[in-house]
Amino acid sequence: MPETAWEDLTRRMADLRALGGAAAVLAWDQETYLPRRGSEARGEQLAALQGVLHERLCDPRLGDALARLEGALGPAGDPGDPADPTGERRAAARALRFDRERAVRIPGELVRGLALAQSAGVEAWREAREQSRFARFAPALASLVRLRREMADALGVPAGGERYDALLDGYEEGMRVSRLAPLFRRLTGWLTPLVDRLAAAPPPDDSFLRGRFDAEAQWAFTLELLEAVGFDGEAGRQDRSAHPFTQGIDPGDVRLTTRVLEALPLSSIFSTLHEAGHGLYEQGLPRRWRSSVLGAAPSMGLHESQSRLWENLVGRSLPFWKAFLPRLAARFPQLGGVTPERFHRAVNKVERSLIRVEADEVTYNLHVVLRFELELSLLRGELEPDDLPGAWNERSQAILGLTPPSDAEGCLQDIHWAWGEFGYFPTYALGNLYAASLHAAARRALPGLDGELEAGRLAPLLGWLRQHVHAAGRTLPAEEVVRRATGAGLDDADFRRYLTEKYQGLAGRG
Amino acid sequence: MPETAWEDLTRRMADLRALGGAAAVLAWDQETYLPRRGSEARGEQLAALQGVLHERLCDPRLGDALARLEGALGPAGDPGDPADPTGERRAAARALRFDRERAVRIPGELVRGLALAQSAGVEAWREAREQSRFARFAPALASLVRLRREMADALGVPAGGERYDALLDGYEEGMRVSRLAPLFRRLTGWLTPLVDRLAAAPPPDDSFLRGRFDAEAQWAFTLELLEAVGFDGEAGRQDRSAHPFTQGIDPGDVRLTTRVLEALPLSSIFSTLHEAGHGLYEQGLPRRWRSSVLGAAPSMGLHESQSRLWENLVGRSLPFWKAFLPRLAARFPQLGGVTPERFHRAVNKVERSLIRVEADEVTYNLHVVLRFELELSLLRGELEPDDLPGAWNERSQAILGLTPPSDAEGCLQDIHWAWGEFGYFPTYALGNLYAASLHAAARRALPGLDGELEAGRLAPLLGWLRQHVHAAGRTLPAEEVVRRATGAGLDDADFRRYLTEKYQGLAGRG
Repeated sequence: MPETAWEDLTRRMADLRALGGAAAVLAWDQETYLPRRGSEARGEQLAALQGVLHERLCDPRLGDALARLEGALGPAGDPGDPADPTGERRAAARALRFDRERAVRIPGELVRGLALAQSAGVEAWREAREQSRFARFAPALASLVRLRREMADALGVPAGGERYDALLDGYEEGMRVSRLAPLFRRLTGWLTPLVDRLAAAPPPDDSFLRGRFDAEAQWAFTLELLEAVGFDGEAGRQDRSAHPFTQGIDPGDVRLTTRVLEALPLSSIFSTLHEAGHGLYEQGLPRRWRSSVLGAAPSMGLHESQSRLWENLVGRSLPFWKAFLPRLAARFPQLGGVTPERFHRAVNKVERSLIRVEADEVTYNLHVVLRFELELSLLRGELEPDDLPGAWNERSQAILGLTPPSDAEGCLQDIHWAWGEFGYFPTYALGNLYAASLHAAARRALPGLDGELEAGRLAPLLGWLRQHVHAAGRTLPAEEVVRRATGAGLDDADFRRYLTEKYQGLAGRG
Repeated sequence: MPETAWEDLTRRMADLRALGGAAAVLAWDQETYLPRRGSEARGEQLAALQGVLHERLCDPRLGDALARLEGALGPAGDPGDPADPTGERRAAARALRFDRERAVRIPGELVRGLALAQSAGVEAWREAREQSRFARFAPALASLVRLRREMADALGVPAGGERYDALLDGYEEGMRVSRLAPLFRRLTGWLTPLVDRLAAAPPPDDSFLRGRFDAEAQWAFTLELLEAVGFDGEAGRQDRSAHPFTQGIDPGDVRLTTRVLEALPLSSIFSTLHEAGHGLYEQGLPRRWRSSVLGAAPSMGLHESQSRLWENLVGRSLPFWKAFLPRLAARFPQLGGVTPERFHRAVNKVERSLIRVEADEVTYNLHVVLRFELELSLLRGELEPDDLPGAWNERSQAILGLTPPSDAEGCLQDIHWAWGEFGYFPTYALGNLYAASLHAAARRALPGLDGELEAGRLAPLLGWLRQHVHAAGRTLPAEEVVRRATGAGLDDADFRRYLTEKYQGLAGRG
């Protein structure tokens, strides 16, 4: 019996997923256990795997099977309707078509060139950052901008759009500069005066966070947090790395990393909660799709919504610390006399700061706006890579009210551009907005949520997210997942309400 | 300018090496850090990568380029002569031809069937061993024997040879049953009376090895050993695993594992030295061949010679313990009163034992002979898989002088047959013989070697091995590497002399 188009595609999707999983293991190992002198080989291994994935996705036999499947599917039903047996195939066909169209448009030569430029870029960036010497990174950045512009041209600029849109599409399908720019203007419009007001107020007392917090005790507390939020320790693990990240390899193999600093106990706590949010999403992707293109998040913004939700809307809330401060204090007796209210106030301190990953919830999106403006200018050719440090410092002063004293604390602080990732930063801001909307919807749906949280029970919230976000996999666009879960699409209203109420509450208890 | 055949092959070899390196990382992770629920995906990832490697090796374009290169190379020069510019290409062509011929002869159906039978075999074996119940493993073993016989037929039996030879060729190129059988008969001829004599003597005092040896202190000592033998910690690492192994990913990325048992301090020491021997070989493979088929060992036997040399000829020698016992005693005060001579005697205790991996140097090869006899009978069809336990016990009594009380301590003790690896065991014995010959040659070439060792300086020995073994990569057959290094090919004379002198010395100091 000849293989049907669906059987053929099922086999090919499984192969793509297996090879993609292999690449994910290598990427995780690169940041955790790779010996220094193995980095050259690692770059080659990842490039070879990317080459195979590209080749597989561009295989004309995959194209034929996909076209046959598309032809066989009747008029469009609801791709998210689990009762429609063709819905799943339709959704898979749509996602595969999207991935394939992007792949076939990029010449193999460019794929390999980019892979090598990325490895070189990261190496140059590491040295440049260590020495706070932008010149070390400048040539690599110039290559990466050039290659990404080439890639955007190869992908094709969307109608009425621009190069940046073609890249953005790879992280946040369907998103456009024409939608981001006004959204970010609106955000800046109300965030800037809010930051002005909050940063001018007397800072909360966080003196109890000074001193030394034993690394092993911190590590043990992060493992306790992982268990509490429902992270399955048999389907994943946590390791240490210089920069925390999450690598989803399979719903049964999700790797988190965190960073433990003895002088900064909040760092490991909030990075663990952040990565746990990503990890819970990856573990919650339906296992029946583990070998399908549907077993993935529809966008980076939606992925980030999960990490920010656990990190901030849960982890920086008063009910959370009512439950967890006693557990933390059990490991660190110096916190014995601190009330949950004081701790809550301390972890929500608002201040102008230079480093995005350490920014509070209020200023965070302004860091994103800064990066969006600059990478857009780089892609448009309005800003030369060599001129980045000056432009960064000027815009940082204008947007954040601060000029970094060094490039290491300025334009060299993030790894993203060293990877040639232009168009990724906005997804962090989208994640913040989606997180606020999803959290508001969960609280409406589960009126007892704050009480559960105060009792240390996080399962109801996870259950709601599993059902309304994770279960959809990649059947729907991110915004549609959010719309079905919350009743509304991308908007800053919930986020604004959340921040306003939170800081009114904190001021009221001042 | 069109690509030359050599350029084409260079590119294809680099791709094969990079993808092989990726598979090696996955195999390492599988035994070190893989979460339990990720094992299904890991199996799929490795199978997908093996599929890509097989496809790449069978690619007709590789075949064409190889044929063009072979046609262009003149009459055969010396493939090991670094001064001959065609020598390297000739050696690479020969190795690629060997690998490709083996790959193309095996039908894809058989490759997949074997992969499934191996997974099933390992699972059945683990359960069978835990329960010491051979019947659980018997059907899987029968399938594996059948498939390996099919594979041997597909590969083609060498002229005048037999099926077993076709499999042996995959581990020890060119080796034949017709050479192994008389060699093993000769070995058994003098080992058996030696074991009889040594095992009958009063055992040395090793009471100081009883008690608890702190795991962290053992780990720290193994790291000290790695540094002392010259293992480059920036080009590799050591982790823990249930069964120690070495995974060479690249000369700059060599992963060792060891096992630390608080009641058995010698276990971590000798497994670290053993794996370090493999690791030093992998790190010593010429970096200019890191993307070539030549950047590898020519055989498993030669690889094993390096691990056995460091473990036994170095690690169980008196000069070594004169240098390292004080360092060990600094970590374990209970060894404070032990002399190097007493320690040396204890680590060279000879006894009849059931478990290969715990066997001393004298009995070890008898364990190999037992397995060789049995797997040869299985492949020949003279022994039915169901009858293995009885045959094992009977031959164990005859060869080792012991009958195992259970199959777990008998025919189920090793994983190799569960992987369908028939023809692998003999390489352990070849490794022992090669190790003795190489060590004897190094001592002839470097008369001060024992003195250096006694002073804890291992660099001269490593330097000699780098030059005479590691530098050859895969340009020459294993035996030819040994012949050029020592003046003679495969033989048991050096091994016999080594054991005889060692145990005469030990008896003399009794």
